[in-house]
Amino acid sequence: MVRHLVTIDDLSEAEIEAIFGLTDEILAQTATPDKPYRVHGRLPWAGDFILATLFYEASTRTRFSFESAMFHLGGNVLSSADPKTTSAAKGETIADTIRVLENYADAIVIRHPQEGSVRVAAEYADVPIINAGDGGHEHPTQTLCDLYTLRREKGSLKNLNVLLWGDLKNGRTVHSLVYGLARFGARIIPMPAEGFGLPEHVTRRLLRDYDCVPLAKEEVQDSASDEFPVDVVYVTPDKPHQRSLFSDVKEKGPDVLRARLPHNALSKIDACYVTRLQKERLEGDASASDYPVVDLQFLKDRRYKQSSVMHPLPRVDELGYDLDNDARAVYFKQASYGVPVRMALVAALLNIKPGILGAAAPKKKHFVYTRQTVHCDNLRCVTALESEQRYLSPKYLVIVEDDRLTSRCVYCEHESIPEFVGRTSTKKYEPNRMRWDTVPDDIVLFHDEATAIAAGFQPYKHKVKV
Amino acid sequence: MVRHLVTIDDLSEAEIEAIFGLTDEILAQTATPDKPYRVHGRLPWAGDFILATLFYEASTRTRFSFESAMFHLGGNVLSSADPKTTSAAKGETIADTIRVLENYADAIVIRHPQEGSVRVAAEYADVPIINAGDGGHEHPTQTLCDLYTLRREKGSLKNLNVLLWGDLKNGRTVHSLVYGLARFGARIIPMPAEGFGLPEHVTRRLLRDYDCVPLAKEEVQDSASDEFPVDVVYVTPDKPHQRSLFSDVKEKGPDVLRARLPHNALSKIDACYVTRLQKERLEGDASASDYPVVDLQFLKDRRYKQSSVMHPLPRVDELGYDLDNDARAVYFKQASYGVPVRMALVAALLNIKPGILGAAAPKKKHFVYTRQTVHCDNLRCVTALESEQRYLSPKYLVIVEDDRLTSRCVYCEHESIPEFVGRTSTKKYEPNRMRWDTVPDDIVLFHDEATAIAAGFQPYKHKVKV
Amino acid sequence: MVRHLVTIDDLSEAEIEAIFGLTDEILAQTATPDKPYRVHGRLPWAGDFILATLFYEASTRTRFSFESAMFHLGGNVLSSADPKTTSAAKGETIADTIRVLENYADAIVIRHPQEGSVRVAAEYADVPIINAGDGGHEHPTQTLCDLYTLRREKGSLKNLNVLLWGDLKNGRTVHSLVYGLARFGARIIPMPAEGFGLPEHVTRRLLRDYDCVPLAKEEVQDSASDEFPVDVVYVTPDKPHQRSLFSDVKEKGPDVLRARLPHNALSKIDACYVTRLQKERLEGDASASDYPVVDLQFLKDRRYKQSSVMHPLPRVDELGYDLDNDARAVYFKQASYGVPVRMALVAALLNIKPGILGAAAPKKKHFVYTRQTVHCDNLRCVTALESEQRYLSPKYLVIVEDDRLTSRCVYCEHESIPEFVGRTSTKKYEPNRMRWDTVPDDIVLFHDEATAIAAGFQPYKHKVKV
Repeated sequence: MVRHLVTIDDLSEAEIEAIFGLTDEILAQTATPDKPYRVHGRLPWAGDFILATLFYEASTRTRFSFESAMFHLGGNVLSSADPKTTSAAKGETIADTIRVLENYADAIVIRHPQEGSVRVAAEYADVPIINAGDGGHEHPTQTLCDLYTLRREKGSLKNLNVLLWGDLKNGRTVHSLVYGLARFGARIIPMPAEGFGLPEHVTRRLLRDYDCVPLAKEEVQDSASDEFPVDVVYVTPDKPHQRSLFSDVKEKGPDVLRARLPHNALSKIDACYVTRLQKERLEGDASASDYPVVDLQFLKDRRYKQSSVMHPLPRVDELGYDLDNDARAVYFKQASYGVPVRMALVAALLNIKPGILGAAAPKKKHFVYTRQTVHCDNLRCVTALESEQRYLSPKYLVIVEDDRLTSRCVYCEHESIPEFVGRTSTKKYEPNRMRWDTVPDDIVLFHDEATAIAAGFQPYKHKVKV
Repeated sequence: MVRHLVTIDDLSEAEIEAIFGLTDEILAQTATPDKPYRVHGRLPWAGDFILATLFYEASTRTRFSFESAMFHLGGNVLSSADPKTTSAAKGETIADTIRVLENYADAIVIRHPQEGSVRVAAEYADVPIINAGDGGHEHPTQTLCDLYTLRREKGSLKNLNVLLWGDLKNGRTVHSLVYGLARFGARIIPMPAEGFGLPEHVTRRLLRDYDCVPLAKEEVQDSASDEFPVDVVYVTPDKPHQRSLFSDVKEKGPDVLRARLPHNALSKIDACYVTRLQKERLEGDASASDYPVVDLQFLKDRRYKQSSVMHPLPRVDELGYDLDNDARAVYFKQASYGVPVRMALVAALLNIKPGILGAAAPKKKHFVYTRQTVHCDNLRCVTALESEQRYLSPKYLVIVEDDRLTSRCVYCEHESIPEFVGRTSTKKYEPNRMRWDTVPDDIVLFHDEATAIAAGFQPYKHKVKV
Repeated sequence: MVRHLVTIDDLSEAEIEAIFGLTDEILAQTATPDKPYRVHGRLPWAGDFILATLFYEASTRTRFSFESAMFHLGGNVLSSADPKTTSAAKGETIADTIRVLENYADAIVIRHPQEGSVRVAAEYADVPIINAGDGGHEHPTQTLCDLYTLRREKGSLKNLNVLLWGDLKNGRTVHSLVYGLARFGARIIPMPAEGFGLPEHVTRRLLRDYDCVPLAKEEVQDSASDEFPVDVVYVTPDKPHQRSLFSDVKEKGPDVLRARLPHNALSKIDACYVTRLQKERLEGDASASDYPVVDLQFLKDRRYKQSSVMHPLPRVDELGYDLDNDARAVYFKQASYGVPVRMALVAALLNIKPGILGAAAPKKKHFVYTRQTVHCDNLRCVTALESEQRYLSPKYLVIVEDDRLTSRCVYCEHESIPEFVGRTSTKKYEPNRMRWDTVPDDIVLFHDEATAIAAGFQPYKHKVKV
């Protein structure tokens, strides 16, 4: 059973902890006292293995960190840095590329502009696939590095106050990170640039899939005079078995939760995670003329006295150069941790270090829908590529929400809400406005009524006006 | 004596067999039972060596297969994937590039858009040069992989029925393959897309240089009602010493040969070799709107029941994705064999495994013409590049045909027929319409009469009207 | 204390000699008798190390020579060949790129189009930085190879007659070379293409910083009838302690020096260093329609009988292909020496071979000026890049000349002459036309009077007319 890392959810919390434990061990064996965050020399665990890096988008940093990790493990590297030098230029599909390359390399790192593309690669590969960024979707090894940095610098992730700063709308690293923070029990404090807040699909997922509870500013701060400009804080249960407690919160309101929070919980920010404006993903005429800056001046506020300042890098203007020599600046260390974390990940995926990964990936708990009645409406989804449509059948997870079904593309994880829902057994359809306990096997989803009728379905009971 | 692989003819049949034997040995030592076609781990034969890959044209697949092979041999790799990042941009010639790089690497793999360019490199190198594709000319390691796949899947190449499908006009892999098939005694069955048949120069060479005999469809099929849509089959002698028998064929007609063919020889196709339309080599407004497709439907014909389906990849639309899980589809295995075959080739060329290659390359049996009275009329020939004309003297093989001399460019192997032929001893010229037993040392070739006269030659006997 | 190689002046003469001694040792251990200039096999000194090559400008040759050197040392290589695939495309600064990459690699080789950029990298790195060419500024490892080739082929550099041929204006390799030749006591004989002579800043530096004495042709040649078309020869003291002797020369005229020169000193040229026209650095409509050619004909002159013909390559038309098989042609050997020289350099910088480099780089003997009253007026200087201005403070060395102060940019080493000079203690300024013994700490430099006045300074004594 080959394991992949396409989204951070492909690893269970226990597996992530095991990878971090191995990272600690690697640093203990290789780092010097003056640079406890940097690997020196070889741990020749992967001497028999070849890692391929396949980058369809520019990145020296991420590619080098993987290749350096592989060299430190004693292995070899096949490197493709440039989109134009690949067979994709001759019209080759992702599935074909992978089924050839899996014979040349023992694991493959992919960066690709199309969202969901790396999931496609993983479906066709029998060597481990690692996502190094698939468009605006995910960049899970960055998230591993971010979480490891927080854990290493702060001892634990539990109940940390993590401020997210800047472009929270377009940054895939931020989206992966918030899910990771939620899973490990940190408190998430978004402080976006104006117009660059967390997208609705991310906040919805935080609440629905990761049991976060959004508390308004006034619910977590003692003093009305506190000028801390946050609108909301996402608080997560300490442990999965406490989720029942959070059901209480949903019913009884935030008082239950506030009682459990320490006094003036936001008086101390443990980490500021700063992100640049993702110019390359801006749509149309969007811009950010007054993108805010984190610098020494900003960090003068007493609440930032112990804040680790993180950044996935590269930075542009949003992070002051005056911070570089400040003890709170950990962004270069964060980049350095990328090597041991990726060494641990590669060692785990190649099964050089058995027992790090469990027998199987975390279970998918949703119904998988494969009928071709709907399509993913994310234009950046890999399923929108003509070349991939030659062989790829769209698939969706059907998620039961309170009063409807939501479909999530298995590849890009974009969610949409079908207008109508039918059953093949009855050949009837109805508006998607019901509570379902479980999703029946014969369910059919429709974007619109015309499609339902064209498929030979009849309205349930009476004709529905839309 | 350094050996190179520029065209498949640079290796004798015995040498190719020895390389395949070493490939078998490599797989026996490294492959696992579940994937007997894939190399795992290192055979550290080339630990002291460096291989350079110099790609002036896009290819991740071929480059990676060489680099993977070198890593499996324990060696190192210098990699240049992008034409624009080379010194060629500063106007450097092929000869100079090679004479520098031969000091940095122990063997050099080259892909270059100009036909014959890799032969130039080999002329100037004192380390082995391997052709990874020189324009539309040759791609001999692909041919080695193709032949090895056939041999491995079918046990032997002798008397195999190999169907060639698609664009037989522009594909260099197909041209090299037909010569290889001919040399090992397979039967060649072209089934081109309309307008994409084997070029005349290839079929001429099949007959003249490889002793193939073309049999029309009705000569090899018993039943007139057989709907098998082939026009011709190229049949080759079992062994070189049987060539006399084939002289008989030429004189006595195909009856002699048909008598030696098994009953209904085409009722079983051993392999279908499918090729994509070589869009990047299409001239002018050529296109292929209804390029045929090999898929499960096509293979339903009983004659394909045991056919191995091969493809050099990448595919576009000409090979159905429905075949991918069919046991007859060997194209991904074929790609996988690329690693052990190239390991064996590199080990042989670096003389790590002595005795694989004989003391010298197969003998050239033709007269070498070096006078500058003619030029290669192939516009894609390396001799047409202004940069290479600084130092490169065109050379031609003079081939004796039944009623004329043909000149073949030593570099791109393009053949042309000089209009006139002269002798320096007599200073006379005459039309190129004679039978020669051997080519005299003082021969002079002319494209036209004006050139002959300008060179001070007189017509032989009487003025010839053209 | 980390050492870098950004300009050839970063190494003392003794250090360069030690590197050449190690190069000899490397060749003694690895070269075969038939190719005494080429490294074979591995000297696994750097097995634990990773070298990164970061090329923002095209070069296969230089990149490969470094990577080959690292492989011969048993190390690994991270390779970035293409400017467009780096984070610079996202707006990352040099300082940030380096501070990330220093965690992934143990030494970093950089080629960058901006002059001075590699000095910036070195300022921010805590691993060794090696300059592989920063715009038109320096290419010091080429100079090491050139000097090593001369020393190896001629036994010593002292009193060698080295002819420099071609484009002496734009070639960074030539500029570094003349400084290196001067330091090791060779005689420099410029023979530029018309309009492509050594720039004034280079000749000024030769005289001022390296104690060269320019002798006119008639001063070094016995016979007026000698047709040797040189205008000037730069002669250097044999050893630093002889510089006093050269002070004599300056005062007493060239007679003193001529007496020390051998009879007819230019009758024998030890080496011709040929350079191509640097087309990519030509400004505006400059061209060189009749760029001169060194070929067998040129070398027929008796004075070239023993000349080693060198060239940094790639060549275009300026070096005849007819020379390639002449024993005097050493340019391919010169390229080959690049591997062992770079092996020695890397081993020294990584401190694998301790004792090669002294405890510290050669001392800077000039005052360092950091006030922001002037800017570097070299448009190709790294300080002119908007991205780098975010964090980079210009710095200048203030050089005391006979009747003025000159400022030299610490990064690109471009020199300029401030119009005015002031003192912060007096708040007065005056024209830069004085003799200074030492530069006072409170000095202020101004490009123009308006700037001085705007900064609150008053003219010294009386208003100066410019």
